[in-house]
Amino acid sequence: MHAAADLELVGAVDKDDPLDLLAEAEVVVDFTHPDVVMGNLEWCVSRGIHPVVGTTGFDAERLDRVRELLAAHPGTNALIAPNFGIAAVLMMHFAQQAAKYFESVEIVELHHPGKADAPSGTARRTAELVAEARRKGGVAPSPDATTQEIAGARGADIDGVRVHAVRLAALIAHQEVILGGEGEVLTIRHDTMNRSSFTPGVLLGVRRVRDLPGLTVGLDALLDL
Amino acid sequence: MHAAADLELVGAVDKDDPLDLLAEAEVVVDFTHPDVVMGNLEWCVSRGIHPVVGTTGFDAERLDRVRELLAAHPGTNALIAPNFGIAAVLMMHFAQQAAKYFESVEIVELHHPGKADAPSGTARRTAELVAEARRKGGVAPSPDATTQEIAGARGADIDGVRVHAVRLAALIAHQEVILGGEGEVLTIRHDTMNRSSFTPGVLLGVRRVRDLPGLTVGLDALLDL
Amino acid sequence: MHAAADLELVGAVDKDDPLDLLAEAEVVVDFTHPDVVMGNLEWCVSRGIHPVVGTTGFDAERLDRVRELLAAHPGTNALIAPNFGIAAVLMMHFAQQAAKYFESVEIVELHHPGKADAPSGTARRTAELVAEARRKGGVAPSPDATTQEIAGARGADIDGVRVHAVRLAALIAHQEVILGGEGEVLTIRHDTMNRSSFTPGVLLGVRRVRDLPGLTVGLDALLDL
Amino acid sequence: MHAAADLELVGAVDKDDPLDLLAEAEVVVDFTHPDVVMGNLEWCVSRGIHPVVGTTGFDAERLDRVRELLAAHPGTNALIAPNFGIAAVLMMHFAQQAAKYFESVEIVELHHPGKADAPSGTARRTAELVAEARRKGGVAPSPDATTQEIAGARGADIDGVRVHAVRLAALIAHQEVILGGEGEVLTIRHDTMNRSSFTPGVLLGVRRVRDLPGLTVGLDALLDL
Repeated sequence: MHAAADLELVGAVDKDDPLDLLAEAEVVVDFTHPDVVMGNLEWCVSRGIHPVVGTTGFDAERLDRVRELLAAHPGTNALIAPNFGIAAVLMMHFAQQAAKYFESVEIVELHHPGKADAPSGTARRTAELVAEARRKGGVAPSPDATTQEIAGARGADIDGVRVHAVRLAALIAHQEVILGGEGEVLTIRHDTMNRSSFTPGVLLGVRRVRDLPGLTVGLDALLDL
Repeated sequence: MHAAADLELVGAVDKDDPLDLLAEAEVVVDFTHPDVVMGNLEWCVSRGIHPVVGTTGFDAERLDRVRELLAAHPGTNALIAPNFGIAAVLMMHFAQQAAKYFESVEIVELHHPGKADAPSGTARRTAELVAEARRKGGVAPSPDATTQEIAGARGADIDGVRVHAVRLAALIAHQEVILGGEGEVLTIRHDTMNRSSFTPGVLLGVRRVRDLPGLTVGLDALLDL
Repeated sequence: MHAAADLELVGAVDKDDPLDLLAEAEVVVDFTHPDVVMGNLEWCVSRGIHPVVGTTGFDAERLDRVRELLAAHPGTNALIAPNFGIAAVLMMHFAQQAAKYFESVEIVELHHPGKADAPSGTARRTAELVAEARRKGGVAPSPDATTQEIAGARGADIDGVRVHAVRLAALIAHQEVILGGEGEVLTIRHDTMNRSSFTPGVLLGVRRVRDLPGLTVGLDALLDL
Repeated sequence: MHAAADLELVGAVDKDDPLDLLAEAEVVVDFTHPDVVMGNLEWCVSRGIHPVVGTTGFDAERLDRVRELLAAHPGTNALIAPNFGIAAVLMMHFAQQAAKYFESVEIVELHHPGKADAPSGTARRTAELVAEARRKGGVAPSPDATTQEIAGARGADIDGVRVHAVRLAALIAHQEVILGGEGEVLTIRHDTMNRSSFTPGVLLGVRRVRDLPGLTVGLDALLDL
């Protein structure tokens, strides 16, 4: 991130460093741990510093607590996003937009074999968004005549959307949403080739958080979609 | 199209049949030829019938002429779309939305070997839309260090977007827009598996044309995007 | 198949027609039903006609019975193949050849939503062949750190190979074998675009069966692999 | 490569180090430069050390010179391979095997935008191998009805095989051979996810070179294909 000409790096702290090193910052990027992130947010917001947060574990209750913090410090904003990969965020958004125009939809996610959960959080979230868009659009369940199944062949059922998780050496993080209707298929695929894929999304957040009043959840709010 | 329960087929005419067979229709679908389509449109509009048109060859001049026709018959509308495949239309729309977030973009279109033009009209149009979105977004040209090229390897240059046309037995009509940025790739792909892929888009047009005042160009205007 | 200049169509029978219409044939192609195929084979072989068979349901016992039939009629041969799609047969063969060179392998098959079994017979067979090749090559099981799985996400386990079955409107029959090792992935994919994909394999069988002594099982025996 | 339990690293030299550091080795791996590789080979072979070579630039003349060197030192062998990525080597081999069974074949290679040549050496070599297999198999040229082409759209023509080169940020090295025939498509794809993909091929070479008499060219000779 040192390479962004219009931004200046004021400081960087690791887990045992004092936060005071960041006291001069306008924006703080927090990729830490659910156990400490709430304290970090309080520290930032109380000083008028806008936090950009990629740390996981924000449920409705935590988001409400952030909203209260921000309400007490007008003019200070926060961006919290579960995924800073722009391609992944666009994939989810497009899948949601396309969902109601196709009879069938399934998700195939592919990750390195060291991953503990299957399917991935991104795949589960995509399935939920797609399922909701289909419900709102009045789309019937995806047709499926399967009567003889070897257990697991048809994947996990997330809100009626089948999700398949591939684990393969050499892969990093990839996902494909496949939509099929009358004589045509639409595939939206995202490939993470290395961890630097979060950088442009984080930089976009840093540049824009000052102009987004209050709490913003999700990177898609910053993309002109 | 006979299978749509909420619509009634009033009549169907082939090229030497009299149009009068369609006089009772509310909507007429025109997939004919550039030489006759303007006459068909006049016939329809003058009778208060809404045309849904997939015939090619509509330039700015022809579209203006249709607007004049409709202005003279208030309450009569027309839909003219170069592509009624919903997946193809969504692919173009998503490519355009994503364009400014990626350093690089290229297009690979794949068709049956009987096709005369390369690249396809859809690929050319996609490249133009993507190029325009990149210009508006202030994106630099896609990086490319090629210094030794066997002629044609890097594809056709359409407004700075490289487009590759594959011709292969067994294929029908397919296109992939590949966008690459910092450590991640987004691929939007459309596959036509058979010609029936136009049906849902045409039916959508037939159902919606009555509520779209005047002239509507492009199926995307009917999709909630 | 009428289009093959070097072959002559002697006759074609449907299920209630007498087989005698085929008495002048050198080769008979049988795509019928497990209930009648053994009778058809006896009829052919006893007349010195070489059968080329795509009918399913041949287990070891039935194959032995065919071998006996042929032994009693020297000079008459038979070809029985579970799959006449050359691309599918090559996919299975290549997957088997590549299997021992990669740490990980998984299979994703994709079919139309009217299919009753999941995974497909071809996918199951591919998994068995791949598993056998890995065993012979002394390859350890594919690594997989999954500890939290929503049921079915990781697919069906066929001899230690994970197989995922996608069912999607507009698809016909498709399969992807994905192999991953140190920093690289090999993908072998087969797409059936329409049912005519069996034709070249059947024609190859018809041309070659006369020169293949006795019983030949599987189209791969006819390909120079 | 330090991780291979059955091999011992005797030494490693950079470009200005003396080769004597390697005098105790049984096998030397040479990934150097065309200007120095012939000297390195002489040094190794004259000492009875088997070289495994990934350096480029071996034409027929150089290979003949290596054969002479080896002939003068019976019992010393050499392996020279233009590509040590097993997935890439398998892709080329399978493409060659499949080539004669399909009407059409095209190649799409995709690389990072810093690459100077288009198409890649691997793509050119694949096209040559495929073209040769088609000639031997008596296959007619791939059908192509293109009459209106924007320059470059149909790719580079390498021995009658069309090759398309995509250059995209985030990519490393990827190639797809697409074969199409009657109603079916076979796709063989290789993705390099990072440079470590050469390691298993080099290790295979190191383990096997002692048992391969004389000069071996290409990694495929070591794979059981």
